[in-house]
Amino acid sequence: MQLRPLAARQARPNPLRSGNYDWPRPRIGWRDRGDVIDLSALGDVYTQPSLNALLALGPEAWAESLAQAPVHDGPRLPLAAAVLHLPFEVADYIDFYSSLEHATNMGRLFRPDTDPLPPNWRWLPVAYHGRAGSVVVSGTDVRRPRGQLLPPDSSVPVYAPTRRLDLEVELGFVVGVPSTRGEPVPAGRFADHVFGVVLVNDWSARDIQAWEYVPLGPFLGKSFQTSISAWVTPLALLEEHRLEAPQQEPPALQHLAGGRDWALDIDLEVELNGEVISRGNAGTLYWTMPQQLAHATSNGASLRTGDLMASGTISGPRPGSEGSLIELTDNTSFLADGDEVVLRGKAGELELGEVRGRVLPPVLIREGT
Amino acid sequence: MQLRPLAARQARPNPLRSGNYDWPRPRIGWRDRGDVIDLSALGDVYTQPSLNALLALGPEAWAESLAQAPVHDGPRLPLAAAVLHLPFEVADYIDFYSSLEHATNMGRLFRPDTDPLPPNWRWLPVAYHGRAGSVVVSGTDVRRPRGQLLPPDSSVPVYAPTRRLDLEVELGFVVGVPSTRGEPVPAGRFADHVFGVVLVNDWSARDIQAWEYVPLGPFLGKSFQTSISAWVTPLALLEEHRLEAPQQEPPALQHLAGGRDWALDIDLEVELNGEVISRGNAGTLYWTMPQQLAHATSNGASLRTGDLMASGTISGPRPGSEGSLIELTDNTSFLADGDEVVLRGKAGELELGEVRGRVLPPVLIREGT
Repeated sequence: MQLRPLAARQARPNPLRSGNYDWPRPRIGWRDRGDVIDLSALGDVYTQPSLNALLALGPEAWAESLAQAPVHDGPRLPLAAAVLHLPFEVADYIDFYSSLEHATNMGRLFRPDTDPLPPNWRWLPVAYHGRAGSVVVSGTDVRRPRGQLLPPDSSVPVYAPTRRLDLEVELGFVVGVPSTRGEPVPAGRFADHVFGVVLVNDWSARDIQAWEYVPLGPFLGKSFQTSISAWVTPLALLEEHRLEAPQQEPPALQHLAGGRDWALDIDLEVELNGEVISRGNAGTLYWTMPQQLAHATSNGASLRTGDLMASGTISGPRPGSEGSLIELTDNTSFLADGDEVVLRGKAGELELGEVRGRVLPPVLIREGT
Repeated sequence: MQLRPLAARQARPNPLRSGNYDWPRPRIGWRDRGDVIDLSALGDVYTQPSLNALLALGPEAWAESLAQAPVHDGPRLPLAAAVLHLPFEVADYIDFYSSLEHATNMGRLFRPDTDPLPPNWRWLPVAYHGRAGSVVVSGTDVRRPRGQLLPPDSSVPVYAPTRRLDLEVELGFVVGVPSTRGEPVPAGRFADHVFGVVLVNDWSARDIQAWEYVPLGPFLGKSFQTSISAWVTPLALLEEHRLEAPQQEPPALQHLAGGRDWALDIDLEVELNGEVISRGNAGTLYWTMPQQLAHATSNGASLRTGDLMASGTISGPRPGSEGSLIELTDNTSFLADGDEVVLRGKAGELELGEVRGRVLPPVLIREGT
């Protein structure tokens, strides 16, 4: 049997398909190739509508879960007949900027007259808080957002649908075990707190972002929607895909040291309207997940069950490995209404859940304002 | 009877005081001068450990609540004997930058070589997402955070306790009624969604912030703790304290127009170790709360019950009305360990709940790293 990620929230039967399943309420499932195994007989945490109760239990319970789930003789549902829900309730959502190649590319585009990397970039994993309430599950369409933006050659902004809607392929990790306020969590404690990973599409409106982001960072250019995979892949399944991360120069300060053996050899793919337009790998990230966690808590900020921390766009050194359209097309081409984007990740034979979404036209209300 | 804000979570008896109260579990209360009235007999939403259930009910239920609570003949507890809990579970936390004087002062300090106001500032209420999980109730001490900062005349950062710990006095509003993803909420719908206001101390580590904030905005310089009042003051109690906000030049674009009659005549006070060091007024804010709400949702981002949106530091045009130490002392003096900060707000005779907190020394673990 090929192991698949532990399921997220599960699964109402699709009324359009026949079958002998009757799963009227979400519950936790395990994905086994094209099937989903209902785990609800394994205990109360598996009857919950999200993974949060299981996440809070910690590494021992997670290990037990991984031992039981793949061999559990529970009811099965074809994956295509399952309704996949948001796998966990997101507490806070942090988005990093951990790819050297992405940060360099974006610096060149947004700040062409300066060093593309800001002075802090090699010293800490730059990040901002995103909007937790805008995180949705794969399969949710994305409405083209309106926002304030500056038309070319104008100094007066307009409120209009974004003309530069972009995707970003990212890898996110999910916190299970909370931490105590005031107490940093060093990189070496990563696996005590973190349950697993999801793929993330951090939809971005580049024109809204460009106009708003100085001096307090991205806000509405990102906050309309963030899509994650329906399946959370436990860290334990990724053990054999861990690599040493690219060397850091200068070396990290001591509070960010460690965790360099957590580069994940996950092949990434961006598909646009059925065509693969980018192939990258999460192992190219400059800052690893344990370093991201150590940084985010280095001021004593506490972790909560359900915290989501994403890597930022993953772009590699090779042409064709860029994780966003603005980089792939040198700022010339963006998403059109009706476009469908699918992100995929694969560690050896282990497939992460995909992230799928189609672009809907802007809502018509308030047109012309 | 003088009306007081509807209470937040309530109230275990203080074992150090005698009395006939036995309130072992938090519940909703009403503050009546020096007393708290237990409202739990009014219905299930008042037996909850937070205001969220009541918040979600919407304006009609809020009005009914305001009619019943002040005259309710429930058990009373002296305010001093009550344990005040975080009044609501914070969904997302947005922090604006809505004071013209504050933005001007900060621009001069952080970016002395440029126009203090960025080009977007007069066109939209600049904002970022803060850390919802770091929001705590008044009375919670604040641990001096460590973080990466650049020592003077050095290009190599260190990880050390902040040397520039600051306070910020802000006014926040609390969302009750959710909105639909994809659908902006115009300024005119403000009172359909928003229940009331809290005072906010947005503790800030200026040296950490200065080093980290380019290009993605404030992160660890703010995310260690944000303190709010234990009492949420319903908008309805502030009706008679509404004023016209200062004129905007240029006029707001249509999607941010309206809501200009929502300047709140709330006198603000910052007390440091028993001495009042600043007196301002929330009515000086350039962007009003309905405009903040309209902006935050103008891209279709949805609202959730418990969303907290704060004004940003409120600084006025008069010397002595600045809402942070960095402004009050021209970047020369910050908080010392042991300092106690109290923020107070008063609209006529109506007192908002105070925000109190004492600075604790940095934790000793990881010293020297």
